[in-house]
Amino acid sequence: MISGSGGRVGDSARAVWRFLLGPPLRAKELGKEQITPVEGLSALSLDALTSVAYGPEAIIVVLAVAGAGALHLVLPITIAIVALLAMLVFSYRQVIVAYPAGGGAYAVSRANFGPHAGLVAAASLVVDYTLTVAVSIAAGVGALTSAFPSFSSATVPICLGILALITVLNLRGLGETARAFLLPTMIFIVGLLAIIAVGLFHPLGLHSPQPGRPLLPTRSLQVVGVLLVLKAFSAGCSALTGVEAIANGVPLFKEPRVQRAKRTELLLGVILGAMLLGLAVLARRWHVGPRSGQTVLSQIMATAVGRHWAYFVVSLAITVVLSLAANTSFGGLPVLASLLSRDDYLPHLFSLRGDRQVFSNGIWALAVMSGALLVAVGGNTQTLIPLFAIGVFTGFTFAQSGLVLHWRRERPRNWQYRALLNGAGAVTTAVATVIFLLTKFTEGAWVVVVAVPTFIFLFVRIHSYYDKVHRELGLGTAPDKPVPCDAIVVVPIIGVSNLTRYAIGEALSLAREVIAVSVVLEDADDQTDRVRELKEEWARWDPGVRLEVLETEYASVVDPIVEFIDELCRVHDEQVVVLIPAVIPDKLRYQLLHNHIDAVLSSALRYRPDVVVARSPVRLEDLKTRRR
Amino acid sequence: MISGSGGRVGDSARAVWRFLLGPPLRAKELGKEQITPVEGLSALSLDALTSVAYGPEAIIVVLAVAGAGALHLVLPITIAIVALLAMLVFSYRQVIVAYPAGGGAYAVSRANFGPHAGLVAAASLVVDYTLTVAVSIAAGVGALTSAFPSFSSATVPICLGILALITVLNLRGLGETARAFLLPTMIFIVGLLAIIAVGLFHPLGLHSPQPGRPLLPTRSLQVVGVLLVLKAFSAGCSALTGVEAIANGVPLFKEPRVQRAKRTELLLGVILGAMLLGLAVLARRWHVGPRSGQTVLSQIMATAVGRHWAYFVVSLAITVVLSLAANTSFGGLPVLASLLSRDDYLPHLFSLRGDRQVFSNGIWALAVMSGALLVAVGGNTQTLIPLFAIGVFTGFTFAQSGLVLHWRRERPRNWQYRALLNGAGAVTTAVATVIFLLTKFTEGAWVVVVAVPTFIFLFVRIHSYYDKVHRELGLGTAPDKPVPCDAIVVVPIIGVSNLTRYAIGEALSLAREVIAVSVVLEDADDQTDRVRELKEEWARWDPGVRLEVLETEYASVVDPIVEFIDELCRVHDEQVVVLIPAVIPDKLRYQLLHNHIDAVLSSALRYRPDVVVARSPVRLEDLKTRRR
Repeated sequence: MISGSGGRVGDSARAVWRFLLGPPLRAKELGKEQITPVEGLSALSLDALTSVAYGPEAIIVVLAVAGAGALHLVLPITIAIVALLAMLVFSYRQVIVAYPAGGGAYAVSRANFGPHAGLVAAASLVVDYTLTVAVSIAAGVGALTSAFPSFSSATVPICLGILALITVLNLRGLGETARAFLLPTMIFIVGLLAIIAVGLFHPLGLHSPQPGRPLLPTRSLQVVGVLLVLKAFSAGCSALTGVEAIANGVPLFKEPRVQRAKRTELLLGVILGAMLLGLAVLARRWHVGPRSGQTVLSQIMATAVGRHWAYFVVSLAITVVLSLAANTSFGGLPVLASLLSRDDYLPHLFSLRGDRQVFSNGIWALAVMSGALLVAVGGNTQTLIPLFAIGVFTGFTFAQSGLVLHWRRERPRNWQYRALLNGAGAVTTAVATVIFLLTKFTEGAWVVVVAVPTFIFLFVRIHSYYDKVHRELGLGTAPDKPVPCDAIVVVPIIGVSNLTRYAIGEALSLAREVIAVSVVLEDADDQTDRVRELKEEWARWDPGVRLEVLETEYASVVDPIVEFIDELCRVHDEQVVVLIPAVIPDKLRYQLLHNHIDAVLSSALRYRPDVVVARSPVRLEDLKTRRR
Repeated sequence: MISGSGGRVGDSARAVWRFLLGPPLRAKELGKEQITPVEGLSALSLDALTSVAYGPEAIIVVLAVAGAGALHLVLPITIAIVALLAMLVFSYRQVIVAYPAGGGAYAVSRANFGPHAGLVAAASLVVDYTLTVAVSIAAGVGALTSAFPSFSSATVPICLGILALITVLNLRGLGETARAFLLPTMIFIVGLLAIIAVGLFHPLGLHSPQPGRPLLPTRSLQVVGVLLVLKAFSAGCSALTGVEAIANGVPLFKEPRVQRAKRTELLLGVILGAMLLGLAVLARRWHVGPRSGQTVLSQIMATAVGRHWAYFVVSLAITVVLSLAANTSFGGLPVLASLLSRDDYLPHLFSLRGDRQVFSNGIWALAVMSGALLVAVGGNTQTLIPLFAIGVFTGFTFAQSGLVLHWRRERPRNWQYRALLNGAGAVTTAVATVIFLLTKFTEGAWVVVVAVPTFIFLFVRIHSYYDKVHRELGLGTAPDKPVPCDAIVVVPIIGVSNLTRYAIGEALSLAREVIAVSVVLEDADDQTDRVRELKEEWARWDPGVRLEVLETEYASVVDPIVEFIDELCRVHDEQVVVLIPAVIPDKLRYQLLHNHIDAVLSSALRYRPDVVVARSPVRLEDLKTRRR
């Protein structure tokens, strides 16, 4: 905490911010901010769980193209997807054990394929985290505006409001976030599982299927091609996005964090698999097809329990939970960014913790990127969904292929079996990635294709710059001894006053040679008088320091001083110090009333090497009484 | 010009700005930026001249309330307004002679009634200048969007675009602005006078009156009350706003500036009077009444010459000239602000000239205030017009009453006669001001009633603060001799490196006592190792300087350093200097890659008195080769 009289400045703004974020935390209090498996579900798995709101629908939409007869394929395709889910859960539980520091796909790829593959995975993840935030918030707000159409004109402001809320909650610390999200997550999980169970228990459902014609093409059953099945499978795989988040966020768990993270991953797999299978069985049994204005999930829920309180409560929970799914990324990206930053691939800013011990710069970066994305697409989910599976699936592919090599190297018991399983998983997700890219390229996938290489380029450039810095700093080698030399202090002044006296006194404390400089503008008619007057005044005062009067025809006071210092540096070998006197007003608002020559001069000299710029601040009321 | 390697930073942005503004000017080149009487018309009188677009209409709208029969009163009322115009022109020609330094109402009131009355006039003028910019731009854009209705949805952006253009032109220097505005102004003046002449020359007009019913109330002629005539007179007086601008901008004219300014004022009076009288005669002859979708001026022009090329050219010129009328204020407010600033009523910033020798801070302030006003009213002229006459008429009243006292004091030939004339003018404008206030209070005049006292309060507070500063600085009294003392230099470091060596070297150049400080965060598991390691590394290097390792449990690196310095200041009597090493990357974009401890620490210590904060910048590539 900054204490003392200087702390007055901007105090009220700081107080509001402190109230929003809570007091600073000690590193030891960090445990408070770490999470249990159940909290982990709400903190890191909402992205994966809420995929049930659009995954099954994506399959049915693709199959419906081939006619109502093709809809029965929803069950086998879902079974395949759940098999892939099982494989991914199995893989990521291994990833958690192998790389408990988090970072998921990035850490695995880096360790197994070398830094370059790691960067590809990292870039994909950065893009994906950003897209997840945007998609989840947009989908949540979309659900809200469907329920309350009068809000639909304010879609973007509502999206940004929710984003701001999530950002502040995360800046406070993830643990509190997880707790805040616990209730809606539980309502969503328990409620939806209960509704599915009711549907399965009453084979015909408690209620008859929805009235109204399903949106099916009128042509009859066609031959269902392999390509269509593959497309439906790939589309349905969007239900798997987010499965990786837990492995990336292991350091957020309470100790024993590896066990807790593994347990959370398994819990997620079981719940998500059960939901997907249950929904597929019900969709097939009730011949659910795509329908305008009502989602597949909503149709199934309404058929199972009717449009009563249970339906509305779970629907509302889905709305809340969808918009909170963004939190998954806020759990993941800052940790990933801190790892990249420690490996010199991102600015070191990202590995600094904020007052609440969170990686606040990563949180801010994610908020800004996803906010820009939401504004760019106008809060429209449909524009975003095709993009965001690509990043995740690239990550899946790298993580699984990395594990194959890991097993080959480590050779634990049954390693061939494990390698085969992960190899099959890698091929499957690679195929899904390619199909996604090909079928969705013009629908926006090109953005990902551009963004990922851009991030990789950025990482590589940053890394090579840090390499250079390390060499130049000579880290690891003992440098020569420091060599002092003489110094000249230049003090810009306006006239003879108590402020000048104070600054000259400070300058004389630092060096024997002190030069006062003053700029006189030629535009005033009495300019020559002013020069003579100033020199006379100086001579009368006789402070024992030379005065240089710089005359200029231009309006800038700063340029002549900078030129004078340039000349001084050329001629002298001494260390040149510019000491700028600055009055500190007793209230911040009076700051505007003082000529800002100090600020302008400091910024003009800011990037000039070899000139030390010193600011000598003194309180107005101290000027008369100060000893020096 | 900032030269040398430091100048690279932000060069491209600066180059664009330099291109927009042109190269810096010497004070001697200032003559180039000064103007002739004809240029003065376009630079300082557009506000007054363009008032013909709404002044006559304002009279007719008020009279029409009493029925068509009352419309014949437009001529006598206009004659009265022109008589007032003559009086004002006469007064302001005297003001120009008496106060050639500009400032108009402010200077006159201040000299004659003392500083307080001067402040009232100044506050009114500031409000009025801002309103003039907003009204003129809004009216110009209104004319444009009437011609091209498809632009009407972008009213505010177009307003702000024009404002930005005018701001840049003025930052380049007023002379060029005057030249840029010359052509449309001439087309407007010559064209409108020619159209009026054609209308007067052909007593029935070249064309028959416009088709369509005038918007008159259906009731028959009523008794026209005195109050109605007064209201119509006051409303018509809005045609006189801007007459004062020339007297306020005398310093902008070429020498002999008083003669040139007087000639411009007379020219303005003759042209404006001729236009107003001509329009009133034609309006009465053709029984012009208010009409929806077409202004009174447009009706008269169309009746005189038909909807042919002359009508369209002059209409377009009116659009351009209306939006450029804003320039009048850009000629006036910055000069007024510089005068107020020299008298210590506004921050001294406003008396600094920019590179182009214009008062750039005044230009910026006016642009920001009027831009905010345009956004607040959504670019709607109707909301603004009632407000802006009030400020001007307050100014008129003060200027004329001031002249009455001036004549009494100076007693030139015929002084009683002159005093009587100005006295009558003062009473007339005072009455008009009161009528404006009463009739327009709820339509927005309250804003002026709030704004003027607010500005006065601001001026008084600023003045009393500067008074205090002058006392504390001890200006005019020779201060004691400066007293040097010993200094301690604190150097925050991260580890042993070439940067540390360089910074310690510079610190040893400034003082014998140097302390290196380093902060170690406790959140890393290897923290105690890091402390021991750092101490060992330091001992091995042995630079002859003490190292303080500060351990902290919080995330902030800055706070422990600030606390250490606090403690140092408490215990020691020496001058404490904090020397912050800073790497200058060879490209600005790499700036983000360096930890910003220097920026954070500088800003944390910025308002702390008695601690000198020095920044020691060094180029990355110089680190190894530098002698010290």
